[in-house]
Amino acid sequence: MVDLTERKAKASAWFSELRDRICAALEALEYEAPKTLYWGAPARFERKAWERKDHTGAPGGGGEMAMLRGRVFEKAGVHVSTVHGEFAPEFRAQIPGAESDPNFWAAGLSAIVHPRNPHVPAVHLNTRYVVTAKSWFGGGSDLTPLLDKRREASDRDATAFHAAMKTACDRHAVASYEKYKAWCDEYFFLKHRNEPRGVGGIFFDYLDSSDWDADFAFVREVGTAFLEIYPTLVWRNIATPWSKEEREEQLVRRGRYVEFNLLYDRGTAFGLKTGGNVDSILSSLPPEVKWP
Amino acid sequence: MVDLTERKAKASAWFSELRDRICAALEALEYEAPKTLYWGAPARFERKAWERKDHTGAPGGGGEMAMLRGRVFEKAGVHVSTVHGEFAPEFRAQIPGAESDPNFWAAGLSAIVHPRNPHVPAVHLNTRYVVTAKSWFGGGSDLTPLLDKRREASDRDATAFHAAMKTACDRHAVASYEKYKAWCDEYFFLKHRNEPRGVGGIFFDYLDSSDWDADFAFVREVGTAFLEIYPTLVWRNIATPWSKEEREEQLVRRGRYVEFNLLYDRGTAFGLKTGGNVDSILSSLPPEVKWP
Repeated sequence: MVDLTERKAKASAWFSELRDRICAALEALEYEAPKTLYWGAPARFERKAWERKDHTGAPGGGGEMAMLRGRVFEKAGVHVSTVHGEFAPEFRAQIPGAESDPNFWAAGLSAIVHPRNPHVPAVHLNTRYVVTAKSWFGGGSDLTPLLDKRREASDRDATAFHAAMKTACDRHAVASYEKYKAWCDEYFFLKHRNEPRGVGGIFFDYLDSSDWDADFAFVREVGTAFLEIYPTLVWRNIATPWSKEEREEQLVRRGRYVEFNLLYDRGTAFGLKTGGNVDSILSSLPPEVKWP
Repeated sequence: MVDLTERKAKASAWFSELRDRICAALEALEYEAPKTLYWGAPARFERKAWERKDHTGAPGGGGEMAMLRGRVFEKAGVHVSTVHGEFAPEFRAQIPGAESDPNFWAAGLSAIVHPRNPHVPAVHLNTRYVVTAKSWFGGGSDLTPLLDKRREASDRDATAFHAAMKTACDRHAVASYEKYKAWCDEYFFLKHRNEPRGVGGIFFDYLDSSDWDADFAFVREVGTAFLEIYPTLVWRNIATPWSKEEREEQLVRRGRYVEFNLLYDRGTAFGLKTGGNVDSILSSLPPEVKWP
């Protein structure tokens, strides 16, 4: 018989471990940044626990936000949560397994990084494990270069990011890079502007190959692939000075990121409607934005 | 028999006239601003026409954007449009009169003003005339003070704005101030933050008292009430100097305005989904915003 309790514990523990490793990697970059471009002291992540109330008013788990507001990373959030309860009636039809039994359990990690330097791409990572009458993993990671000239699939940052995600998928029979890449391009798309949010990456959901250990190994690999590639991309661009015009372009491009997250992102809408923590959900919004 | 052609022409002509008067009033304030606080030359509105394609691909009317980026008004938009066509099947159930006949015609004016000085409130005005198998007016105006200390119903700006809207309603038997004020409070509310967007005003929709001339007279009065009260409120606060902290508070408060418009505003969602002009719809977003 499947031991869900053990799986839940393993998934939660991994998300916490990954959070610690991502925070450490970003703090190291804060520390090592060239002083000629990045003034002030290197910043550290600040952690804040929160508790969730279910729609019935009962305790429903909670999470921990970790926010860094620094010299390299103008705003970075790395959040974990482990929540449980009952889906409100209006959501049950949309969630696999929730039609028959509204109880759910979910754990996950979300990371969103908005660097100060317009040459350094922004990035997003999310992985989660969801248990209803069914159970599955979901998540992905995608890159958002801020300057138009860096937003080509042939750009060396985009190429390296895609290669890292392809390697992560190719190592696991349960994953399909082609499918997940296409899903990512489809998902992170601003229909009203007919333009992608960034250069893509991978996106997957409802992953349940019936080999839980294999699925979980892939999900861990997405996290470690992120940990290898993103700091590399930051380091590549960290010493490139930027102009006032490039900062302006970055601030306007960030507006498109806001438009995506508030108009289209399922996680944002879902979190706001299911009693998620507003501060951590909206911590994805960039620190400074322009719609000139 | 009802002459819809004449009503449409009268409504469209009024929205254009009101647009001209609002633009002139805001340009006058740009011109008269005290030079000690507002540097640079006074700005003028720039107009840009756009054409709409219906969901079938047929021509569907269009509109004219007017944008001012100035020293008093960091960003102001006053837009008119006259559009027509066929509602796409997914919208027909939501629109009165569209179930039986998908053809529609609509004209309207929208104004959104984001002043530079955090002491000067932002404002929004919208009025529209919609014709399906039914026909009605809708619209309203609401005030958004940016500083917490000015966001009380007892504040003198809020009091004056509410009084102006009450007078406009009280002069017309077809309007109910109590109802429209409550509707405004309900509509401009950020559920995820459990807070109102601003201090309210009036909001009405589906106004069809069966006396078209009376309904139209009220809608015109909403426009003229706006023209009387908003420049007064600007003038009251225009000479108050602001601190860096007040500017910061303004930029953060503007983030809530963005959250409302992208998460909740029916007009924004409707416009983006029905082939409206993306530039004019999203011109409501403030010029500079922070989510620190």
